Amino acid sequence: MIDIDKLRQADRRSLGRAITLLESSREDHRKEAELLLDQIMPYTGNALRIGITGVPGVGKSTFIDSLGRYLIEQGHRLAVLTVDPSSSVSGGSILGDKTRMSFLSTHDCAYIRPSPSGTTLGGVARRTREAILVCEAAGYDLVIVETVGVGQSETLVAEMTDIFLLLLLPGGGDELQGIKRGIMELADLVVVNKADSDMERTAKVSIADVKHALNLLKPRLANWQVPVLPASALHNQGIEEVWMAVMAYQELIVGNGVLQSRRKQQSVDWMWRETGDILLGQLSRDEGLIFLLDDLRQRVRDEKIAPSVAARYLAQQFLESRKSS
Amino acid sequence: MIDIDKLRQADRRSLGRAITLLESSREDHRKEAELLLDQIMPYTGNALRIGITGVPGVGKSTFIDSLGRYLIEQGHRLAVLTVDPSSSVSGGSILGDKTRMSFLSTHDCAYIRPSPSGTTLGGVARRTREAILVCEAAGYDLVIVETVGVGQSETLVAEMTDIFLLLLLPGGGDELQGIKRGIMELADLVVVNKADSDMERTAKVSIADVKHALNLLKPRLANWQVPVLPASALHNQGIEEVWMAVMAYQELIVGNGVLQSRRKQQSVDWMWRETGDILLGQLSRDEGLIFLLDDLRQRVRDEKIAPSVAARYLAQQFLESRKSS
Repeated sequence: MIDIDKLRQADRRSLGRAITLLESSREDHRKEAELLLDQIMPYTGNALRIGITGVPGVGKSTFIDSLGRYLIEQGHRLAVLTVDPSSSVSGGSILGDKTRMSFLSTHDCAYIRPSPSGTTLGGVARRTREAILVCEAAGYDLVIVETVGVGQSETLVAEMTDIFLLLLLPGGGDELQGIKRGIMELADLVVVNKADSDMERTAKVSIADVKHALNLLKPRLANWQVPVLPASALHNQGIEEVWMAVMAYQELIVGNGVLQSRRKQQSVDWMWRETGDILLGQLSRDEGLIFLLDDLRQRVRDEKIAPSVAARYLAQQFLESRKSS
Repeated sequence: MIDIDKLRQADRRSLGRAITLLESSREDHRKEAELLLDQIMPYTGNALRIGITGVPGVGKSTFIDSLGRYLIEQGHRLAVLTVDPSSSVSGGSILGDKTRMSFLSTHDCAYIRPSPSGTTLGGVARRTREAILVCEAAGYDLVIVETVGVGQSETLVAEMTDIFLLLLLPGGGDELQGIKRGIMELADLVVVNKADSDMERTAKVSIADVKHALNLLKPRLANWQVPVLPASALHNQGIEEVWMAVMAYQELIVGNGVLQSRRKQQSVDWMWRETGDILLGQLSRDEGLIFLLDDLRQRVRDEKIAPSVAARYLAQQFLESRKSS
């Protein structure tokens, strides 16, 4: 059992054990995890949830470390969670290493939790959504969810955060051709990192290009012109300006109610996705359907039956089987 | 009812009506669609399924038009389907316009079908998977599925095709920083388009950069070094070389059985995803759960209960309710 009082005092051991519990797929662990979630719900929702993405090499860790140092000096308490699909996509973990954030990893007011490896992206997403709640209950008033943005992870992170930061490297207009419109459309704030010394001029060009590209996009939020700011996390330059922009955005979405309505929508969407996963899990474990499932799977494999047709029959039989169960 | 014989003779009207039927969400249409799928299954699976993605401006349409002209001259029959999530993501359709492919759109041996707008990405994906089967039954031996690669669409397209082409623009090394590793990892073949006149040198640089980037990635398929080729669709340059590479890839995956095993896996995954969608649809239409659903939705919205906890209870009640139904 997790000691809620200790957890609420941000006791690291309780925090770690709680998140480990959320990551477990064991049935008894899951029940315990849901009990825990029920107990902490009253203490959740009080943090600003910040999503940060950027390709490998853009300097996410250094940026978060530098931003985090600034925020802790301002009296904030910061939790950093990572969604690292590379553990499922390309084998090795990109973000796993705590030591990438030398300041935060040693500071009492910061809690860093790497992504669990070897789970599906969906699994990582659920665990991260729940971990956000745990960190909020533990009194962290800022929760950063970072992702390297492989495949679909940045969409998932945008779906669980209040503001989404896109980190870019200084680069010519050609670079933008490579940035997927999808990502641009998710960004509430764009930061061109490593905008220092010899890259300053290039950075200026990138900023102009990004602003231009953003003008072509349907804005994600009315009355919000996505800021494109230069920064050098390594030299702690532009960090405060970035934070001012985040604050301005927070003020806007709190003021016009978008933060609350967006969170409500996120939660409902999450409930649906989760419900689907649970039903499929039950179906695949239904002993009465083992033979049917094997048969359909085989016929689908052999292209004897269209997957969508098999799916309808499978769903029907699953629901039928409950009557006699 | 669709006339299967006419469909198999690639009668355009039957083909169009068949795909429209697949796009309908009406229950009676769905039943008819599944009957159609059952009837055509024996005639499916004979085409090479080619996925093509690239950012807006890379020249996808011109490339497909140029490639298609070459293929038709070789005696092939070509169907082009588009997955255009922009219709759901950013409102307006990017790929909808047939006339982008001036040659193919007027040729008897080519069939172009734009993406249905106003549906979810998942809906577009299912319809496209089924449309591939219909085009195969109609005797097209090549099916190209193009997507602009917004959000998650390129992953979906990679999941329904045999070979995945990534189109890039000539650009410096910085450009690559913007290309998501996720996309690079999906690519079986990379084509740097618009590699003509004054861009030739830049294209050479890009090709070197892309090759370098690919070396950093875990190969998607053993014994296959992803080729990175220059092309100028506008001037019909490099098209044959691209096709030779596609052929080499097909020979490899047919020879080592990857094509078949990959298709089998794709079909099973598709069956699962579809089953989940169907069960959620039933649950949301279950009259006995209306009040519970509203209540849970409200409590999730108000952050009184964790979405994952609500999901488990909802799934339980749904399955319980079937017993008494």
